[in-house]
Amino acid sequence: MATKKRNAFYAQSGGVTAVINASAAGVIETARRYKSRIGKVYAGRNGIIGALTEDLIDTSRESPAAIRALKHTPAGAFGSCRYKLKGLDESRAQYERLIEVFRAHDIGYFFYNGGGDSADTCLKVSQLSEKMGYPLQAIHVPKTVDNDLPITDVCPGFGSVAKYIAVSTREASFDVASMAKTSTKVFVLEVMGRHAGWIAAAGGLAADKTHPIPIVILFPEITFDRDKFLAAVKDKVERFGYCSVVVSEGVKGPDGKFLSDQGLRDAFGHAQLGGVAPVIASLVKESLNYKFHWAVADYLQRAARHIASKTDVEQACAVGKAAVEFALKGHNAVMPAIVRTSSRPYRWKIEMAPLADVANREKMMPREFISEDGFGITDACRRYLTPLIGGEAYPPYKDGLPDYALLKNVAVKKRLATDFKV
Amino acid sequence: MATKKRNAFYAQSGGVTAVINASAAGVIETARRYKSRIGKVYAGRNGIIGALTEDLIDTSRESPAAIRALKHTPAGAFGSCRYKLKGLDESRAQYERLIEVFRAHDIGYFFYNGGGDSADTCLKVSQLSEKMGYPLQAIHVPKTVDNDLPITDVCPGFGSVAKYIAVSTREASFDVASMAKTSTKVFVLEVMGRHAGWIAAAGGLAADKTHPIPIVILFPEITFDRDKFLAAVKDKVERFGYCSVVVSEGVKGPDGKFLSDQGLRDAFGHAQLGGVAPVIASLVKESLNYKFHWAVADYLQRAARHIASKTDVEQACAVGKAAVEFALKGHNAVMPAIVRTSSRPYRWKIEMAPLADVANREKMMPREFISEDGFGITDACRRYLTPLIGGEAYPPYKDGLPDYALLKNVAVKKRLATDFKV
Repeated sequence: MATKKRNAFYAQSGGVTAVINASAAGVIETARRYKSRIGKVYAGRNGIIGALTEDLIDTSRESPAAIRALKHTPAGAFGSCRYKLKGLDESRAQYERLIEVFRAHDIGYFFYNGGGDSADTCLKVSQLSEKMGYPLQAIHVPKTVDNDLPITDVCPGFGSVAKYIAVSTREASFDVASMAKTSTKVFVLEVMGRHAGWIAAAGGLAADKTHPIPIVILFPEITFDRDKFLAAVKDKVERFGYCSVVVSEGVKGPDGKFLSDQGLRDAFGHAQLGGVAPVIASLVKESLNYKFHWAVADYLQRAARHIASKTDVEQACAVGKAAVEFALKGHNAVMPAIVRTSSRPYRWKIEMAPLADVANREKMMPREFISEDGFGITDACRRYLTPLIGGEAYPPYKDGLPDYALLKNVAVKKRLATDFKV
Repeated sequence: MATKKRNAFYAQSGGVTAVINASAAGVIETARRYKSRIGKVYAGRNGIIGALTEDLIDTSRESPAAIRALKHTPAGAFGSCRYKLKGLDESRAQYERLIEVFRAHDIGYFFYNGGGDSADTCLKVSQLSEKMGYPLQAIHVPKTVDNDLPITDVCPGFGSVAKYIAVSTREASFDVASMAKTSTKVFVLEVMGRHAGWIAAAGGLAADKTHPIPIVILFPEITFDRDKFLAAVKDKVERFGYCSVVVSEGVKGPDGKFLSDQGLRDAFGHAQLGGVAPVIASLVKESLNYKFHWAVADYLQRAARHIASKTDVEQACAVGKAAVEFALKGHNAVMPAIVRTSSRPYRWKIEMAPLADVANREKMMPREFISEDGFGITDACRRYLTPLIGGEAYPPYKDGLPDYALLKNVAVKKRLATDFKV
C-alpha cells in the first residue's frame, strides 16, 4: 500500500463516448480531495501515447469549474488514441519507456479509461510493479459504447448511446409513419456495434405499449437471412403501413462477410466505402419496391451528450471516483464494476472486479434477449435496457448550442532528454 | 367575411418537421377559442388526400391535453402526403371533388400547412370560391425545413433542424478531435437541403469564438470543385489536426449532376442508392489518405423534436394561431409571415403576406451569407441563423424516452356516397 504522496496518470483510450469525460472528472475531483496522498493528476495527451512521448497534461492547472464542466462535455478532453500495447516480451521497449516516464514524474497511480483492449493493457501495466521493480498501481476505468466488458452490468458510455438510438428511432418512426401513405414506407437506421448487438437492441425501446411502432432489428449475433428479413418488413408494412429497420454495422451474411462489405464501385470503378444502411435500403427497394430513407448515425450517436442518459453520466462519474478510492486502499489490477441490485426500481452499486477476469473477454447479447424470430428484443432485454437510458442530464446552452468545455491542457515540463517514437 | 358558423379543414402537406404539429395545435386551440364562429376543425387524414377521399379526422374528439401535447410531438399527427394539385384546368376533377367534400361537411375555412408546392395548391384552392361559386377562405400555414419560402424571415421547422445540425456538428467535431492523433481525421456529415444551403449553413454555427472548430461546408449553391475542396480539407487538418465536413445532399459537380448520383453498383452489378457523404469520404481517403468517418442524418434531423429550437416551436405555434385569426377577419389567399424586427436581441412579429407573392418562388441563400472561398458562413449569416436556434423546448420524458402524443384520430362519418380515386 502506497503511503508516500505520489502523482497519478490518467489516460483515455479507444473510441470516445458522451460521458468518458465524466469519468475523468470523477478521477480528478476525487484525487483532489486526497491531496495528502495524491500529488498531481497528469493526463496523457492522446492517451497512452502521451505517456510514451512524455507529453503529459497538468490537470492541476484547470479550475474546479472546468473539471466540473467535463461532466457535461462529450468526447475525450485530453485526446484519445487507438494504440494497443502487446505483451511484455513483444513490447518491452514501450513498457520500459513507460516506467522511465513514470519514474521521471513520480507517478504511482495509473488510471486507464477504456474498453476491452485497454483493460488488457492496464493489466499488463499492473504487472510492471513486480516484473520491473517499479512501484505502481494500475486501475482500469471502464468505458465503451459497445457494452461488451464482462462482469460489470453495463459499461459507461453505453446508456447514452442507447438513449440516443432509442429516441432517434422513435422520432424517425413518427416521421415515416406520417409520410407512408404516399411516400416513404421503410426507414433504415444504421447503428454501431460491430461484434455485439447491444446498441441495435436499444432501437427496440422506441416501441412500447403506448407507442406501437413496427421495428425490425438486425443483430450481428443473427446471420442475415434475406428472405426472412424481407418477409418481416413486408408483414410490418402491410399491418402498420410502414416499418423502421435498425441495423447493426456488424451484420453478416451467410458467407460470414459484413453486409456493408459489398465491394461497391462508383461509375469510374473506384472502390466505394459504404455502410450497411444503403445496402439494406436498396434490397428493400429492389425486392419489395417500397420507397425508403436511410440514415447512418456514426459519431453522432456516441458524441450525443445533449441527450445523454442521466444514469450513464452518474455511473461514469462513479467509476472514476471509485477507481481513485480503490487505488488509495492499495489495490492494483482491478476495475470498478457496476452491479445491479434491482431493476424496478433501478438500484446499482460499485464493486471491485479483478482485471484478470475482465481483460480479453467480450460480453455478447444473451440469446434470450433477442426475440425468437431474431428481429426484436424480449421483455428480459427491455428490463435490462430501460433503466440504463433513464433520466436526462442536459448540458448548459449558450446561443442555442451546448456550452462544452475546452480545457487549457497545459503541458508538464519534460524531464527526459530522450524522445520516443510511437 | 364569413359570419355564419362553419367548420374548418386543416391538413399537413409534404415532408414533416419537428414542429409542424405545434402549428396544428396553434390552429386547433385558436379555433376552439372562437366556438361561435368556427364549428369543428376537421383534419385531412394524410393531408389533402383525406379531403379528396372524404377521410376526415374529427379533432374535436381530442382532449385539450392531447392538442397541447402536439406542441412537443414531431412529425405529422394526422399524416401528411406528397400530392400536388395541378392547375384548375388540368385537375378540375380534384377541385370539384374538394368542393363536394367541403360542401358536405360545411367547411368554410381551409388551412394548409406546407411548403412551396403547398402554397401553390392553397392559392388555387383560394380561387375556388370565386371560380366555382363555393364560399371558402384558404390560408396557408408555412412549414418547411428547407427554409426556402419567400417573404417570411424563416420557415417554421427550419430552426429546429438548424439546431440539430449545429449541435450534432459540434458534438461529432469534439469526437473526431479526440481521435485524430492516431485514427479518424475527417468527419463528413450529410444534411438535407436539395436546392438551398440553409441547413448546411447551420453546421457552421458549431464553431464560434470559444469553440474554434475547423469546418468545411459544401453548399448546393456552390459548384463542387474537387481540388479546392481537397486543399481546404488538407489545410484544416494540417492546422487543427482534424476537419469536419458538412455536405448538403444537393451538391452538384461541374457537370450539373448531384455528387450523390454516382451510378454506384454493388459486386453483382445492382444499382446502389447512395448518399453524398460516402462519396466525399471516399474522395478524402483516396486523395489525402486521411482516416474518415461519415454520417447521414436524414430523417433524424427533421424529426429531432428532443432538441427542437424553442424559438421555432413558438413561431410554429404562432403561425397556426395567426392563420385562424386572419380567417376570422375575412382574409383569403394569405399566409402568416414571420417578420424579424431585431436580431440582437431577437424580436419578431407576424404579418400577413399575399399567397400570390409566396407561391412558386424559392428563397435561396444570399451569396453574402457564404464566405468568399465558398466553404463557410459569414458574420451576416451567423447573425441571421443564431436567433433561430435559440432556446430549448424539451419534451416530457417517460422511461427515458420522449412521451410523444398519438391522437385518437377518430374519423368523421362520411356523408357522400361516392368514392374518389387519388
